[in-house]
Amino acid sequence: MKPFLDSILLTLRANRASIYHLELIQDIIPTISSFSKDVLYPLNAVGDRHGCKRIDCEHVTTPPGFAAAYRQYKEQGWHGLSFPEEYSGTGLPSSINIIKTEVMATANWSWSMYPGLGLGAARTLLKHGCSNLLKDYLPKLVTGEVLGTMCLTEPQCGSDLSLISTSAARDPSAVRDTSAGDGEYIINGTKIFISCGNHDFTRNIYHCVLARMKSGPPGLKGISLFLVPKYLKDGTFNKVDTVRLESKMGCHGSSTCELHFSDSRGHLIGTENKGIPHMFTFINTSRIGVALQGVAASEMAAQYSLDYALERRAMRSFDTKKHEHEFPADRIIVHPNVNDMIMTMRCFADGGRSMLYECALLADQEDKNEKELDFLTPILKGFMSERAIEATQLAIQVFGGHGYIFENKVEQLSRDTRIGTIYEGTTAIQALDLLARKILQRKLEPLNNFCKKTRQELYRQPCDAYTREMFRLLIELQAFTIRFAFQAKTNHELIGKIAVDYLAYIGYIVMGIHLLRLGRLDPGHLKYVDHYFNMILPRTKSHMTVMKRVGN
Amino acid sequence: MKPFLDSILLTLRANRASIYHLELIQDIIPTISSFSKDVLYPLNAVGDRHGCKRIDCEHVTTPPGFAAAYRQYKEQGWHGLSFPEEYSGTGLPSSINIIKTEVMATANWSWSMYPGLGLGAARTLLKHGCSNLLKDYLPKLVTGEVLGTMCLTEPQCGSDLSLISTSAARDPSAVRDTSAGDGEYIINGTKIFISCGNHDFTRNIYHCVLARMKSGPPGLKGISLFLVPKYLKDGTFNKVDTVRLESKMGCHGSSTCELHFSDSRGHLIGTENKGIPHMFTFINTSRIGVALQGVAASEMAAQYSLDYALERRAMRSFDTKKHEHEFPADRIIVHPNVNDMIMTMRCFADGGRSMLYECALLADQEDKNEKELDFLTPILKGFMSERAIEATQLAIQVFGGHGYIFENKVEQLSRDTRIGTIYEGTTAIQALDLLARKILQRKLEPLNNFCKKTRQELYRQPCDAYTREMFRLLIELQAFTIRFAFQAKTNHELIGKIAVDYLAYIGYIVMGIHLLRLGRLDPGHLKYVDHYFNMILPRTKSHMTVMKRVGN
Repeated sequence: MKPFLDSILLTLRANRASIYHLELIQDIIPTISSFSKDVLYPLNAVGDRHGCKRIDCEHVTTPPGFAAAYRQYKEQGWHGLSFPEEYSGTGLPSSINIIKTEVMATANWSWSMYPGLGLGAARTLLKHGCSNLLKDYLPKLVTGEVLGTMCLTEPQCGSDLSLISTSAARDPSAVRDTSAGDGEYIINGTKIFISCGNHDFTRNIYHCVLARMKSGPPGLKGISLFLVPKYLKDGTFNKVDTVRLESKMGCHGSSTCELHFSDSRGHLIGTENKGIPHMFTFINTSRIGVALQGVAASEMAAQYSLDYALERRAMRSFDTKKHEHEFPADRIIVHPNVNDMIMTMRCFADGGRSMLYECALLADQEDKNEKELDFLTPILKGFMSERAIEATQLAIQVFGGHGYIFENKVEQLSRDTRIGTIYEGTTAIQALDLLARKILQRKLEPLNNFCKKTRQELYRQPCDAYTREMFRLLIELQAFTIRFAFQAKTNHELIGKIAVDYLAYIGYIVMGIHLLRLGRLDPGHLKYVDHYFNMILPRTKSHMTVMKRVGN
Repeated sequence: MKPFLDSILLTLRANRASIYHLELIQDIIPTISSFSKDVLYPLNAVGDRHGCKRIDCEHVTTPPGFAAAYRQYKEQGWHGLSFPEEYSGTGLPSSINIIKTEVMATANWSWSMYPGLGLGAARTLLKHGCSNLLKDYLPKLVTGEVLGTMCLTEPQCGSDLSLISTSAARDPSAVRDTSAGDGEYIINGTKIFISCGNHDFTRNIYHCVLARMKSGPPGLKGISLFLVPKYLKDGTFNKVDTVRLESKMGCHGSSTCELHFSDSRGHLIGTENKGIPHMFTFINTSRIGVALQGVAASEMAAQYSLDYALERRAMRSFDTKKHEHEFPADRIIVHPNVNDMIMTMRCFADGGRSMLYECALLADQEDKNEKELDFLTPILKGFMSERAIEATQLAIQVFGGHGYIFENKVEQLSRDTRIGTIYEGTTAIQALDLLARKILQRKLEPLNNFCKKTRQELYRQPCDAYTREMFRLLIELQAFTIRFAFQAKTNHELIGKIAVDYLAYIGYIVMGIHLLRLGRLDPGHLKYVDHYFNMILPRTKSHMTVMKRVGN
């Protein structure tokens, strides 16, 4: 793993980050980079090999070295970087924390999930918790003394949270929300696929649990959000039993638990029956996190592949000028297809990073930018997780047979990355969110705003073949969407039929815009711009053809 | 696993197989199907979990049940189905054997690799071995008493076989090719990634080894092919040491060995320094085998996904008529995106099967159809292995989080299938073979013949939107290739830059033709034709755009 501070700084500048941001990054990232490279990266393969072990209902051990690395990270005070100082945080913008997380995740995604989920729980509590909850529980989440989880999925429901059956009942004998109490709700039910649901990083774990009160309405509107600690204040086990760990394709270093809540005590977070909107604070944070995983995976795919292609030799270049006669064969980087695959990975890593940072910087002023973030988040998550899978598959291809072998790391990378298009809402869910909820339901306004803003950016650039192509793609997108909106009124099924292509189409446009931004600042990036516009962006043609054949 | 005899028969009829073929298939396949479903399929997950174990240099054990299943198969006489009766075979057309293999491979690809490699060695020997070799060694390969391997790759060379350094030296004291001798050549060197390189299916193993004689010219033209048995005739170990087993992403049931040959004795197969052309008998058989793996994987991806989507419930259909009010949510098959993913897998399985059978039937009269097979093989292998990876990834997506979990089988399917675009020549190698060797070097003749033959087929069909689109794609393909051939004369690098897109472009055309064939015979297939032409075939647009931007 090679540090990439220059790329971080370039990307921040391309997205008009403030001097304050740039200074902070230069201060913080070198230390985080060293920690990631020296401590986390070597644990990545260890995590895959060893996985996590369930000891009993109460105890799970993580791979050797994982918990010790966490203690080191926590003790150096890196955890609560972007939380208010009154809750023991450092008070920096949340974008700084996202970049910190990106660097750690590039080294070891599975490890980074534990602190990531802890911070997601902290954010959810900060935004929706009452003052007693904030006082009692938040500081431990911010310092990292306690980590957290999000408990949504149940055996019978994944994407469709309206089917949740975990129950919550008020215990009239409990004292409401006082610092003395352990919560006035009793939770019962089974949650599956709970990432970092149990581990040995911290003694206590605060579970954010969606559950249904008997008194509430059916469906999504009858679900509330609860904070359920693994251990109560007096140290007794709150009967959040780890029934088993899942045996997964990848991310072996991250424990994925089936949890049984048996009369477990919990606090209500926010308002009764508002569990779904409250949980969306966590979900949206996690969606950005999955996009971040995609950027991290694409970065490592590009790094691994370039290193290998500069070393491995096979055949002669078609270009005789590139022959290295002192060797029996040329380095495989000289072969156009190998080089193109690596260029594609680099485009996805750099373009994806820029897409991520744009959202991260918008999130620093979340209230002001809420609408734009709402529009960009499903694109970022849906598109980037798909491209990351592609990048890691290409990395295997560059390695050839060696890519299929454990020790060369790219096959692990591809397995770890495969979950990205599934968790926190599949690509189809992101696509429906974008097209149905964010565009059609809002009468195209977010789309039109995006197109307008993008055109303004393009107008400031020299008019060349690439900006012209972007104008053309935007016009086609708007024209198609207007026609489609009429059609979809009478045929709702069409939305589901084209949404994934629609998301891909916009995704390629957004990534193109970002690569142009990087190219304007850094001439070294222009070759990636060329590669992207010639070899990747044409995919929009097939997506648009599909949409037209199905939808118009 | 569901049997698919009807699909086999339909596909044979669509490709104008003889009555003889159809009768044979109806005789043979039901038994093979039962064996595959009842014996091989349950072993598929066992193989993934247990993998193979190296005991010592001489011994490797396969997963529990694998060797016993092989004995059952061998004793029932299924192995040498398509070999001449004079060598203890059954004398049936080789296409029958390919279909037999497809059924077994659908149940358990890793297991099917062992007999597959044995038959590849038998074919190579049959075609190039001298009479003494045929007499002494072939019958055991045909009955399956002995299995075989292909030993090409070395640590320093994969795609580039010119770098082979394993040495062969003539032992003047040995008697040439008599039935009494163990071969007059002494082999030394290291071979890696040897599939089924050691196992407990059979006591002896015949390795087909590429090695270099000191006397020969450098490069590809100085390589010869040898038959090196694991055990000599007197039963002594021929020092083909299994140094280690590779730890792979998938295909855990198939042993992948690093073999050291230390003064191992071997027989020359065919002519000295003609090892590469001789080995292409084996390689081309294996390329068909990899395409077959792709068909098998796509079939299982479609089967698993459809079963799951008919059972799993989430959300309500956009179409109120499809609501099942007696359940809390509708089956996920009603969601257009889920249904489309399954349709895509079915297109790849059925279209790929038809592409495979076309080649298999051509191979029954190999001499007559050599040129056509030469042209179609890289398309079949390159395109089908890519589509199979896509199909298995889509299957994971249909399963959502459950697809990432071992017990639901689709993640294993995707890992097992991932190697397809790599072994027996990567997609880029297939693409260069197609564009450079099979098309440009032969002055476009094979392409023009293919286009002509395809047009003749289309002329016999009603002129509708789909046949018109096919005509258009063929014209665009030929026009592009003519222009490109001029350009490539002065810029060889362009070939490497567009070859993979070129292969994909033709691949989508060929699969479209085959789906039309199936649709003509079976109206039930017309919905797949619609799906393919609306949602898959438009990908040709992006491939052509890339080719034009880069190449024209």
